[in-house]
Amino acid sequence: MNKKMIVYTVCKLLRLEAFLLLLPLSVSFFYREPLQLKWAYAGTIALIFVVTLIGHKKPDNITIYSKEGFVIVSLSWMLLSLFGSLPFILSGEIPGFIDAFFETASGFTTTGSSILVDLSVISHSNLFWRSFTHFIGGMGVLVLALAIFPDFNTSSIFIMKAEVPGPQFGKLLSKLMHTARTLYIIYVVMTTVLVLFLRLGGMPWFDSFLIAFGTAGTGGFGVQNGSILPYNSPYIEYVLGIAMLLFGINFNLYFMILIRKWKDAVKSEELRAYLSIVAVSVTLIVLNLLPSYDSLRKCIRDAFFAVSTVITTTGFSTADYGSWPAFSQVILLLLMFVGACAGSTAGGLKVSRVVILIKSTFLQLQRMIYPNSVTVLTFEKKRISDATEKSVTNYFTVYMFLFAGFLIINALNAPDFLTSFSSVAATFNNIGPGLGKVGPTYNYAEIGNLSKIALSFAMIIGRLEIFPMLVLFSPMTWRKH
Amino acid sequence: MNKKMIVYTVCKLLRLEAFLLLLPLSVSFFYREPLQLKWAYAGTIALIFVVTLIGHKKPDNITIYSKEGFVIVSLSWMLLSLFGSLPFILSGEIPGFIDAFFETASGFTTTGSSILVDLSVISHSNLFWRSFTHFIGGMGVLVLALAIFPDFNTSSIFIMKAEVPGPQFGKLLSKLMHTARTLYIIYVVMTTVLVLFLRLGGMPWFDSFLIAFGTAGTGGFGVQNGSILPYNSPYIEYVLGIAMLLFGINFNLYFMILIRKWKDAVKSEELRAYLSIVAVSVTLIVLNLLPSYDSLRKCIRDAFFAVSTVITTTGFSTADYGSWPAFSQVILLLLMFVGACAGSTAGGLKVSRVVILIKSTFLQLQRMIYPNSVTVLTFEKKRISDATEKSVTNYFTVYMFLFAGFLIINALNAPDFLTSFSSVAATFNNIGPGLGKVGPTYNYAEIGNLSKIALSFAMIIGRLEIFPMLVLFSPMTWRKH
Repeated sequence: MNKKMIVYTVCKLLRLEAFLLLLPLSVSFFYREPLQLKWAYAGTIALIFVVTLIGHKKPDNITIYSKEGFVIVSLSWMLLSLFGSLPFILSGEIPGFIDAFFETASGFTTTGSSILVDLSVISHSNLFWRSFTHFIGGMGVLVLALAIFPDFNTSSIFIMKAEVPGPQFGKLLSKLMHTARTLYIIYVVMTTVLVLFLRLGGMPWFDSFLIAFGTAGTGGFGVQNGSILPYNSPYIEYVLGIAMLLFGINFNLYFMILIRKWKDAVKSEELRAYLSIVAVSVTLIVLNLLPSYDSLRKCIRDAFFAVSTVITTTGFSTADYGSWPAFSQVILLLLMFVGACAGSTAGGLKVSRVVILIKSTFLQLQRMIYPNSVTVLTFEKKRISDATEKSVTNYFTVYMFLFAGFLIINALNAPDFLTSFSSVAATFNNIGPGLGKVGPTYNYAEIGNLSKIALSFAMIIGRLEIFPMLVLFSPMTWRKH
Repeated sequence: MNKKMIVYTVCKLLRLEAFLLLLPLSVSFFYREPLQLKWAYAGTIALIFVVTLIGHKKPDNITIYSKEGFVIVSLSWMLLSLFGSLPFILSGEIPGFIDAFFETASGFTTTGSSILVDLSVISHSNLFWRSFTHFIGGMGVLVLALAIFPDFNTSSIFIMKAEVPGPQFGKLLSKLMHTARTLYIIYVVMTTVLVLFLRLGGMPWFDSFLIAFGTAGTGGFGVQNGSILPYNSPYIEYVLGIAMLLFGINFNLYFMILIRKWKDAVKSEELRAYLSIVAVSVTLIVLNLLPSYDSLRKCIRDAFFAVSTVITTTGFSTADYGSWPAFSQVILLLLMFVGACAGSTAGGLKVSRVVILIKSTFLQLQRMIYPNSVTVLTFEKKRISDATEKSVTNYFTVYMFLFAGFLIINALNAPDFLTSFSSVAATFNNIGPGLGKVGPTYNYAEIGNLSKIALSFAMIIGRLEIFPMLVLFSPMTWRKH
């Protein structure tokens, strides 16, 4: 275990966070906010620089392996959330440490679960920082570091592997720095276009930026109380509904389009499965809701927005799907687990994993009916090796077992089963609002401290796709040979 | 596909059911019940003999493979439930077909979910038949046929494989008929001992037999309104709590004890895991409940009984765990999925599968930390082949996906999420009562017809461990080569 390299890399990332904190500091100057806010940001930046002095010197041995990659990723995500929560505490706008950590972890992991009851009393700089964490967390902090530090690390492949969501099939990772930079450019361009679309719909500039950050990272923190509803604009709802779906698509596909491989992108099996799931879910929910709606158009809009916000694990809301009939709620709850495409900014199991799991099961059935048949699992027209198949089924297993574990801990102070179940589903899958007492019209302020801590960890574990955090906390990792 | 052999075997099993129906007919004579009941049973028996004339002649080609085995098992379970429901309909005590089918499927699959609101108006013969289906379904109808028809079939291994729950590791299946007979002898002896123990506790003979049937098959139909509570006897509660746990143990272990392999039986990894889960769950629930109980002794008794009834998927009840705090409810809900040991009469995933899944995940973590390490999955001191590991993870996947499917269908007319979720969990895992509106103090009378049909299938699919029913309904099975 190359501990020096771990400390060095984590410190470098924390200093990157310090630089990013200059943005909300500027916002606080721009909006002439009280001195306390400026001190909160300046103080946090200074503290980070002081603390990271311990990892200032580049170690002689810079070789790391996947083990170190996992530890670096999980350690930095926890520390980024820890230091990122300081401005909220120091500014006094989220005085409690547990609340502030929950809110920041929710931001970085692009969950969007909030403990804030009234957003109108929160300063612009804090609102900006809160939504900006979505933007950074969506594509990944380490991917950002890879994109901007040219000599970041020769073994960085292990870091990127640990941070990018979904099982990896493509060879996109081979030219590492180039890839990271291209991904970020696509990401920034798409976000900028979204800002303009929102501004055109009459949304104020400040809100347009913040909502675009929340959409890009599939995070879901709002700017106004009531999320997207206060803008009262079908145009904005459709723009966001479509934008969320776009950010839920594998970024490899945008990369392919950039290099003019249109056909390959359109033929993607995961993309087609993803869009089919969206279409079927919207149809079923519309059929279920229609009797209680006066207008078919509004019914379709609400259903489309809800499906889009849930499957992409964003968590914006327009209609209160917490009051929808049980059938629609169950569909949304299952979509929470499906999530969007691998290689996107979304959480959840990812469509590719779900497709592989279904295919694997189907082959098992085939082997039972024809014991002598030769079965080959293919995905995206490529053969899936037994090792990959195994890692996907193992992922599903550990995912469900961890879910059960969080369910037990969270039940210790949950008011009812739906709240308890959906709050774990909504945080572990990085969605944001759940159902019941943590539904779209509620927030996480009222849940107990034990639950807040457990759910904060659920968010980070969910965002990093479980194994990095398991590696960090496994005694095996720290055992001496 | 050897269709003639399928028809022949299924008809033979239905005639076996007709013979078994002579028992409740005798009960109706013994208790001098109205003529209508006697006609209901006699008519059903006559009808079965007439219908099964189509499969009277033994086909020339008696060779079958696993495909036919799966079809035979799933077809017979559906038809046994269908014909078994006729006495309830003809006697007028469960007039609706859907209700009667639900009740009978619930009996054979040892689920124990009931649509009966008031047991005091049900005749002795129908109560007997209802509980007796638990006894037959627990060990399996086809296993019974194997035990009593000496020349039943040379390829019966495929039938037995399809009906006995749990992944199979032992070589118990090699001497097929001998095994089936030994299993049934152990089963009958244990049930008889339980009848005597219950009678000693002051339970009437009739109730002792019926409750023993429900315990042996881990079914859970009661005889009195209020399940076990009306007997008002701590002795009976302890006897049943322990008896349920014993019927949840792999019957291979009793076989080992019979052939004096005591040590092997006690060292069983699955047995130890099973008892540990019970001990931990009881402790956690006692700690959670204690503040609301006056007596520690009663608290332990209620918690032990609830854990025992849920993990063995029996479904008797003493305390109303529907009113317990969320933490205890979540633990019970998770135990519903765990189930008891493979090769027992219980439902659920089975402890052995859960252990293998956890070990498999742990090895995945180890491979991530030490990519070059050689990992071998062992269970019960034997190496688990990749194929077995794959079949276990596939089973878990298809199990969760089917669960999601039933959740969607059932949500179409479910009153709330907890009821909807737990009624699927309680039927798919063959438990009986769930939580919410189908909790221990309620029943399934009020749920919609669509749910009743869906849940009836969930019970059969759950009891047969999914694949036989999938094979039956798969177009692949019926495709011509």
